[in-house]
Amino acid sequence: MPKGFSFASIHCGLKKRKLDLGLLVSENHASAAAMFTTNRVQAAPVIVSREHVEHASEHMRAIIVNSGNANCSTGAKGLSASRTTAIAIALALGCMPEEVVVCSTGVIGLPLNVAKIVDAVPDLVNTRALTMEAFDGFAHAIMTTDIRPKWAAAKCKIGGKEVRLLGCTKGAGMIQPNMATMLAFLATDAAIPNTLLDSALREVVSRTFNAITVDGDTSTNDMVVIFANGTSGSRPISGPGKDWDCFCDALESVCSKLALAIVEDGEGAQRVVEIEVRGGSSREAADQMARTIANSPLVKTAIAGSDPNWGRILAAAGRSGVEFDPERMEIWMAGIKVYEHGTLCEFDERAAHQRLLAKYIPIVVDLDPQHKSAGSKSKSRRPSRADRPGTARVWTCDFTTEYIRINSSYRS
Amino acid sequence: MPKGFSFASIHCGLKKRKLDLGLLVSENHASAAAMFTTNRVQAAPVIVSREHVEHASEHMRAIIVNSGNANCSTGAKGLSASRTTAIAIALALGCMPEEVVVCSTGVIGLPLNVAKIVDAVPDLVNTRALTMEAFDGFAHAIMTTDIRPKWAAAKCKIGGKEVRLLGCTKGAGMIQPNMATMLAFLATDAAIPNTLLDSALREVVSRTFNAITVDGDTSTNDMVVIFANGTSGSRPISGPGKDWDCFCDALESVCSKLALAIVEDGEGAQRVVEIEVRGGSSREAADQMARTIANSPLVKTAIAGSDPNWGRILAAAGRSGVEFDPERMEIWMAGIKVYEHGTLCEFDERAAHQRLLAKYIPIVVDLDPQHKSAGSKSKSRRPSRADRPGTARVWTCDFTTEYIRINSSYRS
Repeated sequence: MPKGFSFASIHCGLKKRKLDLGLLVSENHASAAAMFTTNRVQAAPVIVSREHVEHASEHMRAIIVNSGNANCSTGAKGLSASRTTAIAIALALGCMPEEVVVCSTGVIGLPLNVAKIVDAVPDLVNTRALTMEAFDGFAHAIMTTDIRPKWAAAKCKIGGKEVRLLGCTKGAGMIQPNMATMLAFLATDAAIPNTLLDSALREVVSRTFNAITVDGDTSTNDMVVIFANGTSGSRPISGPGKDWDCFCDALESVCSKLALAIVEDGEGAQRVVEIEVRGGSSREAADQMARTIANSPLVKTAIAGSDPNWGRILAAAGRSGVEFDPERMEIWMAGIKVYEHGTLCEFDERAAHQRLLAKYIPIVVDLDPQHKSAGSKSKSRRPSRADRPGTARVWTCDFTTEYIRINSSYRS
Repeated sequence: MPKGFSFASIHCGLKKRKLDLGLLVSENHASAAAMFTTNRVQAAPVIVSREHVEHASEHMRAIIVNSGNANCSTGAKGLSASRTTAIAIALALGCMPEEVVVCSTGVIGLPLNVAKIVDAVPDLVNTRALTMEAFDGFAHAIMTTDIRPKWAAAKCKIGGKEVRLLGCTKGAGMIQPNMATMLAFLATDAAIPNTLLDSALREVVSRTFNAITVDGDTSTNDMVVIFANGTSGSRPISGPGKDWDCFCDALESVCSKLALAIVEDGEGAQRVVEIEVRGGSSREAADQMARTIANSPLVKTAIAGSDPNWGRILAAAGRSGVEFDPERMEIWMAGIKVYEHGTLCEFDERAAHQRLLAKYIPIVVDLDPQHKSAGSKSKSRRPSRADRPGTARVWTCDFTTEYIRINSSYRS
């Protein structure tokens, strides 16, 4: 647990029974960085929190999150509800409203009953409620269609002092973060100025939260926030170098675990699929192809059926808008080469089916196999910072009848 | 029935029991036009048929189609199989191989057993088999996961003479034709030179087959072919004017019926959804937004649940990459205005749910409602040739558990 952070959660009445309001507080002023959804439609809390982080990114104090209502497309009243929430927390903690990040997640378009939140603030900020141990409740309070709370932690040494990093996230549907992410909250006791924190966050998010997709839909409420309060007493990270690398590695470790946890908890998901495209003309081209394959309903349903159906992968690659030579391409599924020289390889269908029953399925599409040892298969479960140009990895889940059941009955 | 065309179908053994080989023959040489998939991966019959239509578009004779195998990614043997098929038909009919269009549909990547096709040709070209009435069998022989055969007909008068147009199509999955279509075959006894026929086809396909999507996946085998054999005895269509308009209207009537029939027969579909985006800065922008909404799994599952969940339509519009002002936008579902001025309208949820139980659901997204009467709702069941700039319409189906069931067990 990073030092100097405490948490609280409560049921305020936005959901029927479950925890629906969570609070993260930094004892000291923390430097902060945040990334927000790129959807043209932005929820009120996204607008308000962006303002706050721009104003006070050197001295933030708290994050307040409600589930059960996204406070999106709720007009002037919605904006006022987010501002009121920040003011209520600021009054209770004795800080400025700008030092509070406000987040909401849940159904779009229904008015947010902010009175329920305001009424719950005194109990939430109560010293007994606000503890380090209440992190578990916080991770639960931010959930919507999530089955499991999702959290991860890491530590590293900066100048001989141990620095800790803790994060949690929510999200199971409307997931294809684009330059931002679903809700994710990260807290560290490292000392790092807000500008460096921002660079670290952007670099890491591009390879973690921005490299996952459940259904290709980007939410109106996506947000990732990190607070660094320096309570570890470690020397401040002052710029590129050993300390910075060490911190970025720890941050990437936490973010990639959280991102994969979102995919694992994808609505109705049975399997996690890692799609790596290699040998592209650029990282962007590789990413475009990987994302097209990852969002193909036909590929995702084939994985649900553990079917080594490389034809659908090939067809998705072909419609991705990326130039390539099908005669030169290779496709590997779960470590088995299934396609090369423009046609299928001889492989054991039954063995391939068995391997595709696993929980974690790597798929490799190599557009230029001559340029490296074709036999190497992706085995890492987390993104590497040393990715080659022309290579991109995207994580997705399979598409099951459960996804349909959830989304034809749940109102998001 | 257009004059001078006959059909035949047979079970040649590519499928277990059902009809799997169909033949269309024009008595006379027909002028022809065709459009092919834009997928980077192109099946052997696509490559061969493109060559043939380029060589002989003024004097085509036949279309041979097999289902049960796509003959895609089958290398040199696959190309040879398609050429062999054309030669076998040409020998039996006494024409040139270039005068034969070859099509395949079914599983990708498995070798095509062309001997089964060649062995079946004598029975197929038998005079008793080859009749006008056998069109029904032909429409069945081209099916894969289709539930229903899909055909449409129209007629028009050219210089006092009646001209007839008949078409059939197949397709239920891997449907987002892009500058081409799934397999569709059109036959007319009008007299029209191949260059004009090509213009007419391109114009009409952009608003019909290219405006539908089932799952956003573009096939490797898409193809639409039209033959015009002049057997009606009508005067030749020589260029723009009344005859041309009349012919294009008939062609559009047939193509739009066939395109909608594909969506209606979309894998697992219960409902057809028409998404019209108005008030865009261009037709392309409107089309991009309509297509993003049409392919959103969250929108499609909401329709499966008859849920007036406009928040998902809004979120999909927001991530479509198209610039717009959410405060000005209006959203209509099944004739009910559900969103305006940046927030939800007061509407009767229960009544909206009832309307969304219908088989045909119009959704209108108006980005600039001030510019016209906002109350007008799209009611037409077929695309109009008079679409305004800034307007696009796309048809899709809902996303049900049946889609997942079909695609996690069927090998395409």
